[in-house]
Amino acid sequence: MNADDVVTAADVRAARDRLADVVHRTPLDTSTTLADRSGAAAVGLKLENVQRTGSFKIRGAYNRMAQLSAEERERGVVAASAGNHAQGVALAGDLLGVDATVVVPEVTPAAKIEATRGYGAEVVVEGDIYERSYEHALDMAERDDLTFVHPFDDAGIIAGQGTVGLEIAEQFPDPDTVLVAIGGGGLISGIATALKARDPDVRVVGVQPEGAAHAKPSLEAGEVRELPGVDTVAEGIADTRLLDRTFAVMNERIDDVVTVTDRDLAVAVTLLAERAKTVAEAAGAAPVAGLLSGAVDADGERVAAVVSGGNVNLSDHAELTRTGLLELDRYAEARLALDGWPTALGTVTEVIEDEGAELDTAERARRSAGDDPNRTPLTVGIEGAGPNHLHAVLAALDGVDGVTVVSSTLDE
Amino acid sequence: MNADDVVTAADVRAARDRLADVVHRTPLDTSTTLADRSGAAAVGLKLENVQRTGSFKIRGAYNRMAQLSAEERERGVVAASAGNHAQGVALAGDLLGVDATVVVPEVTPAAKIEATRGYGAEVVVEGDIYERSYEHALDMAERDDLTFVHPFDDAGIIAGQGTVGLEIAEQFPDPDTVLVAIGGGGLISGIATALKARDPDVRVVGVQPEGAAHAKPSLEAGEVRELPGVDTVAEGIADTRLLDRTFAVMNERIDDVVTVTDRDLAVAVTLLAERAKTVAEAAGAAPVAGLLSGAVDADGERVAAVVSGGNVNLSDHAELTRTGLLELDRYAEARLALDGWPTALGTVTEVIEDEGAELDTAERARRSAGDDPNRTPLTVGIEGAGPNHLHAVLAALDGVDGVTVVSSTLDE
Repeated sequence: MNADDVVTAADVRAARDRLADVVHRTPLDTSTTLADRSGAAAVGLKLENVQRTGSFKIRGAYNRMAQLSAEERERGVVAASAGNHAQGVALAGDLLGVDATVVVPEVTPAAKIEATRGYGAEVVVEGDIYERSYEHALDMAERDDLTFVHPFDDAGIIAGQGTVGLEIAEQFPDPDTVLVAIGGGGLISGIATALKARDPDVRVVGVQPEGAAHAKPSLEAGEVRELPGVDTVAEGIADTRLLDRTFAVMNERIDDVVTVTDRDLAVAVTLLAERAKTVAEAAGAAPVAGLLSGAVDADGERVAAVVSGGNVNLSDHAELTRTGLLELDRYAEARLALDGWPTALGTVTEVIEDEGAELDTAERARRSAGDDPNRTPLTVGIEGAGPNHLHAVLAALDGVDGVTVVSSTLDE
Repeated sequence: MNADDVVTAADVRAARDRLADVVHRTPLDTSTTLADRSGAAAVGLKLENVQRTGSFKIRGAYNRMAQLSAEERERGVVAASAGNHAQGVALAGDLLGVDATVVVPEVTPAAKIEATRGYGAEVVVEGDIYERSYEHALDMAERDDLTFVHPFDDAGIIAGQGTVGLEIAEQFPDPDTVLVAIGGGGLISGIATALKARDPDVRVVGVQPEGAAHAKPSLEAGEVRELPGVDTVAEGIADTRLLDRTFAVMNERIDDVVTVTDRDLAVAVTLLAERAKTVAEAAGAAPVAGLLSGAVDADGERVAAVVSGGNVNLSDHAELTRTGLLELDRYAEARLALDGWPTALGTVTEVIEDEGAELDTAERARRSAGDDPNRTPLTVGIEGAGPNHLHAVLAALDGVDGVTVVSSTLDE
């Protein structure tokens, strides 16, 4: 299969016309901070996290479902997804007046089920893991004569996602490099199709988490390779493989794939929140992680990074930013040994305030094996301006009477 | 003093010309969710949290400082601020080549000092509270012949902030109501000046936190009233009074002032993050809080809400969203009594998963006076789809062998 057999730039332009009055033309925000940190000349963030349904998925789903025949529309569609595709299919069904059924695995949180139902879809809970839900959806399609809407291995889906690329070209002219997260490869296939047709020299680079890095081995082998399993915080792109269509398109139209760690993803989520004031899910932060981690060298370039989604619950987002701040040594957890409780506790708060740091948490700790029986163990969480500042704060704590710093996350 | 003696719509238009190549024309994002929740026909969020320096303050500071005489520029400026005004003055100084000194109180976190220094300003730490820093800055202005840049009581500042209003009129045509947070009143004075000149029927409403609600008493009394102190999570608008210029403008040009609680602010920060995917500081969420709390009745109206800033450290943001989720009964903390440890602990995790909720935290609790000595106390944090769902989850927990729900935040 050649890329042109799957999808062409003309298909993406046709998708744009279909989507014109349906989806948001999301903002492209330029970030001086991210440019400074990465050495890029300019960084443009394409904010698909503020797209309808909170991710780009509505583009592909609507474009696909708008091309159903009258008879297919009448019968309805079925899809399998625990995430963003579910909401894309549900909203597209609502907008087009097509009955949509979404099969979700048993572990799916009630909040996500409600969101999907909120768009008017019927939700069927079936399968202990996603693969079982997927099979059940295929069975339902056959049994009830429904159209199965695949999350990525479909020309209409790919063309719809490609409209993101057309908007990047308008909003951030002449990018040198465009970074896109890869799960099943639908988004990057569409974007590469749109952009390479305009400028064959633009570099399109995919980003995958270390724990779901199947695309590079597949492209190097010249055939789809499947991972036995995945392990990443980026649920939205925790796929095990490409499929025929995305493989064919990516094989011809993308330039490289890099990997990032889950810690890189946490740092990217953190800086997107702190500097760009935007809430991204881990998968949506992958392109920024590729840039900031150095996995992509974009020195002096104009770089567009697609922030593909923002559907993360706020407790999980808080966990990611905590990890990010720890990773950046902007937050430290330290175990102290106090000689004289509670006087030494007052000393601790005083020193931290004098140093201009912020005491976030302080807790009398459970005694552990190494603790001096004549000292009180205290764990503190401290936020500061950076590693040098926090090192100075801990040194100051260690230097006062009654306080010893036993260990801290700065040492790790 | 009449409003026209202070500032006119022509002053705001002149400010726009000065600012054209300097500040971002920030996006105006429409939110279906917030419209649905408030009964408004449409809600537009003017996102000044993605403005340069993370708030609207650069607009006023630059407009003011761009009008300094050559001699004043040569000598430099001084300001007092622990927050967004500091960064506005610092960046404006950098852009205009004017030396800027910012006096900050002793308690200012090192991270904020670094941010201000990062824009090239000199930072002087002086004063145990803001009022002392303010006086010190005035002393420095006199001693060193510097121009003092007031945070709000200044025609150039007000006109600069007013450019937000011109952009709202372009990006969200014919609003019925425009909601703006009030600290010292600079932003709302500018916006009202810009908008009322175009359409006298537009309603401009100010929002203040309960713990710093000085504007309404002042406007009702017909003279500036000062609060003895403030108590609010919204640091950015924790002022004690208007001053002559903002009072004169607001007296003629704004329609009403409402108050919101700190809990309302936390809910607004939460929904902005979850639904609009945007990070707002508490002060920046005040207009949305006014709308969602019902303090402003905007049924069927087109409402623009200014999200004025996003400078909040991420630990504080996480605390606000936790409060917001608790307030919305989307998150519950419960104290359980377990009969049989650790078997009953397994039962707890199973029930919560079966109910489609998410177990966020689980901790063997310190025993307290009311606890049954033959049961193990456990505190759990559970995230769910809403109050009905969480009530069902707790009822299910209470109904299984070995688990009793002693109390929960849903009861509060």
